[in-house]
Amino acid sequence: MVSISAYKQLEKCFGQLQALREASGVLHWDAATMMPKSSASAAARGEQIAALDELCHNILNSNRTSDLLDDAENQNNLNNWQTANLREMRHLWTHSSAVSGNLVAALSIASTKCEVKWRSARTESDYEGIKPFLSEVLKLIKESAIAKSEVLGCSPYEALMDQYTPGLRQTTINPIFSDLEEFLPDFLNAVLEKQALVKLPIIPRGPFPLSQQRSIGHSLMETLGFNFNQGRLDISLHPFSGGTPDDLRITTRYNENDFMTGLMGILHETGHALYEKNLPKEWRRQPVGEARGMDIHESQSLLIEMQVCRSKEFLSYAIPLIKKTFNKEGPEWEVNNFYQIYTAVKPGTIRVDADEVTYPAHIILRYNIERALIEEKMTLNDLPNAWNDGMAELLGLRPLNHENGCMQDIHWFDGAWGYFPSYSLGAMAAAQFFESAVKSDSNILPAIRHGNFEPLYIWLIENIYKFGSLYETPELIKRATGKQLDPTIFKRHLTRRYLS
Amino acid sequence: MVSISAYKQLEKCFGQLQALREASGVLHWDAATMMPKSSASAAARGEQIAALDELCHNILNSNRTSDLLDDAENQNNLNNWQTANLREMRHLWTHSSAVSGNLVAALSIASTKCEVKWRSARTESDYEGIKPFLSEVLKLIKESAIAKSEVLGCSPYEALMDQYTPGLRQTTINPIFSDLEEFLPDFLNAVLEKQALVKLPIIPRGPFPLSQQRSIGHSLMETLGFNFNQGRLDISLHPFSGGTPDDLRITTRYNENDFMTGLMGILHETGHALYEKNLPKEWRRQPVGEARGMDIHESQSLLIEMQVCRSKEFLSYAIPLIKKTFNKEGPEWEVNNFYQIYTAVKPGTIRVDADEVTYPAHIILRYNIERALIEEKMTLNDLPNAWNDGMAELLGLRPLNHENGCMQDIHWFDGAWGYFPSYSLGAMAAAQFFESAVKSDSNILPAIRHGNFEPLYIWLIENIYKFGSLYETPELIKRATGKQLDPTIFKRHLTRRYLS
Repeated sequence: MVSISAYKQLEKCFGQLQALREASGVLHWDAATMMPKSSASAAARGEQIAALDELCHNILNSNRTSDLLDDAENQNNLNNWQTANLREMRHLWTHSSAVSGNLVAALSIASTKCEVKWRSARTESDYEGIKPFLSEVLKLIKESAIAKSEVLGCSPYEALMDQYTPGLRQTTINPIFSDLEEFLPDFLNAVLEKQALVKLPIIPRGPFPLSQQRSIGHSLMETLGFNFNQGRLDISLHPFSGGTPDDLRITTRYNENDFMTGLMGILHETGHALYEKNLPKEWRRQPVGEARGMDIHESQSLLIEMQVCRSKEFLSYAIPLIKKTFNKEGPEWEVNNFYQIYTAVKPGTIRVDADEVTYPAHIILRYNIERALIEEKMTLNDLPNAWNDGMAELLGLRPLNHENGCMQDIHWFDGAWGYFPSYSLGAMAAAQFFESAVKSDSNILPAIRHGNFEPLYIWLIENIYKFGSLYETPELIKRATGKQLDPTIFKRHLTRRYLS
Repeated sequence: MVSISAYKQLEKCFGQLQALREASGVLHWDAATMMPKSSASAAARGEQIAALDELCHNILNSNRTSDLLDDAENQNNLNNWQTANLREMRHLWTHSSAVSGNLVAALSIASTKCEVKWRSARTESDYEGIKPFLSEVLKLIKESAIAKSEVLGCSPYEALMDQYTPGLRQTTINPIFSDLEEFLPDFLNAVLEKQALVKLPIIPRGPFPLSQQRSIGHSLMETLGFNFNQGRLDISLHPFSGGTPDDLRITTRYNENDFMTGLMGILHETGHALYEKNLPKEWRRQPVGEARGMDIHESQSLLIEMQVCRSKEFLSYAIPLIKKTFNKEGPEWEVNNFYQIYTAVKPGTIRVDADEVTYPAHIILRYNIERALIEEKMTLNDLPNAWNDGMAELLGLRPLNHENGCMQDIHWFDGAWGYFPSYSLGAMAAAQFFESAVKSDSNILPAIRHGNFEPLYIWLIENIYKFGSLYETPELIKRATGKQLDPTIFKRHLTRRYLS
């Protein structure tokens, strides 16, 4: 009975930790959407969040938690969900206990300072100005990576990836990225040649009133299954998906002259939110009940955005509604025109504006650079040239300045090293999941054409959502699709969409 | 050096506690203004707040905090602010440590259940339906009151008041309330007779578009000194003032046919917010840097609402602006007409709709009843009759039903026993402060007529705001006004405004 009690006590402890993390999430959401603009408001909020984070850190790193984990791991009466829950608890504990409270605090302070500086330095392409701040972040990130790598038994860079995509190692990712790196240049040329032969799509002319854009967003979110009695859509500078399964908070930003980018952003975030909403309720606030890492999370948003919402089926359903709301007419409102717009390929220097085909090149560049920096095969002095040369090599473009080059993304400046691979792994997993889904139920695509997402959700619930973190990522993918993550499927998807 | 360290450690601990309470405040604000409507969202939020509250309780009640308090109280090198800070820390600790964690949790659960039930039972005047829930709350409140009374050395009812207005005892409040109880009936009759002789004011006819009401509210808040770079105005069912000095969050509700009630509500909450904003910055997040109890807080909102904003001087400034925004003309837009509206006296059964003259009667009724219930001189079976008889005696009215009678206020149902006296003590203190202010600076009222609140704020900052909780309430009042809280001054204010 003692040992049962250890596991049960851990459930209580992690339930409380997650409730506190949810509280922290509300503070972050509020800061991004509602908080007044003064730096004093931001500073006070930072201190509130820091106090919460410190508490969570102390709870997770207490001797009591450590003893309970040891005791629970000696229990032999746990079922498979409980066992997986304990595995995930241990994983969280390992990451947290590997680094001292002082290092965590130092990293938090350095990241905040660097991010604040980055906001102004970026617009001036002032790499020399940001370098000392970034250097401090990188130093502490390396320190943290080394400490974690020792307990995880992996390389420091892998320890960073492991924070976002547990279990991911270079032996998995390197062959996949090499495969893509080899495939993309020729494929990209072929797509560009093919698209050059076709008449350019007609871009719909605005203005598109924001209230109508919001109303379209709301309506399509509801069609996709978002329940506004348990969630909100708001505006923030950088769109994100937050909140809890009972209170989902997604954000977007609107541009009066371009409704298409904002709308696709809303649908992307809705994909994240639907995953959260459908996680196993009976494991709410337990580690095993949470989303299975950032690559799978990204796969769910990209499945909705890239696989579903850029399909002819979805556009056939959505465009007539959109056209009606804006009360517009003309050849640009043909479904085929929108399909052409939403699948147009054009190499560019900005990741967040990239199309589905060139996006992996952006990720591979960042992956190679951040790994080299962590492994000390490159220094921050080399970063701008490495970036510009890499961009030239991968996409044949040189950024005009650092704002459009190595300073474009927030990730490195606010301490999220090892995160980038999740995006492309997610894109590949999305293609693989969707291929399996439409193979297993031939009604999925025809239903989407009529705005009916139920067949798709049945598959997603049964194969992804309901498992939370029960299985580790490779097993989840294998159970859902019959095989490991396989870049062939992503390439097949690209070929079918862009060359057929 | 050891003992200095004890006090400094306490400062750190209470600073963290206050940061966590601020976090909890954001969760409450969000729940009232932004949170989606489903009960699942509310339940999850309740759990997040409970987890935070439990943590705060544990920190405050740890052996470490207790030992540090003992050690710091043996230090003889503290200055007067530090000494007062320690006194306030001890006061918080005494209230918290007097009751077990189980009792706190039981009370929180019982109050939440009772409040939820009250929301539906009230509209049906279903006293029998709410009674068992209220009975459970009262039982636990009494248990808590008794436990606290033993360590505070006062009566159980006083222990409840002490939570909101530290140090308040019946020896202070009884003579004041008796005085008012004696004064009010004749005074009220005299006012009613006088007002009956005058032509009725003309009520402005709406609709008044909400966007214009909001714009007027914003503009007058700014005139009063509210900075929207460090605060917000939003909508909630029950208006309140929350947030922090750096991020003030006040709420209101609008009625399209009546802008006057909502506007006065906004000005009232702005009074609360200005107090918070101007608390001593160097003692931010320390108990001594916080507002001096709920009676003084209420005095600051009522000083703005009742003393300032219902004055002819303020109305002379504000009404022309309001008239212009609504683009209205007519005799009802004369300042004197609005002064007549805003000082009209009419006994009614609803506290929150009561005018300045009849309001104390509502409070005295509640004070007498809640004290009798805590002291077991009355049971919940007697409550409805005691209420209706008391209302008949004090204001000559009998409520039509319990919704307009003993079920109208949320306080008892959500566990806020001992709070009501703060309202009337605040009203009296407001009159006393304002009389001293205008005596000490004859420019205050003329400046208000021109929308200039600076002279008033100079007095408020110098006499109230900047002291936070440095002095106990009686001393704060005495230093600011030269005497103890004196109902004569409140009566003089009423006589001047309503009978002269």
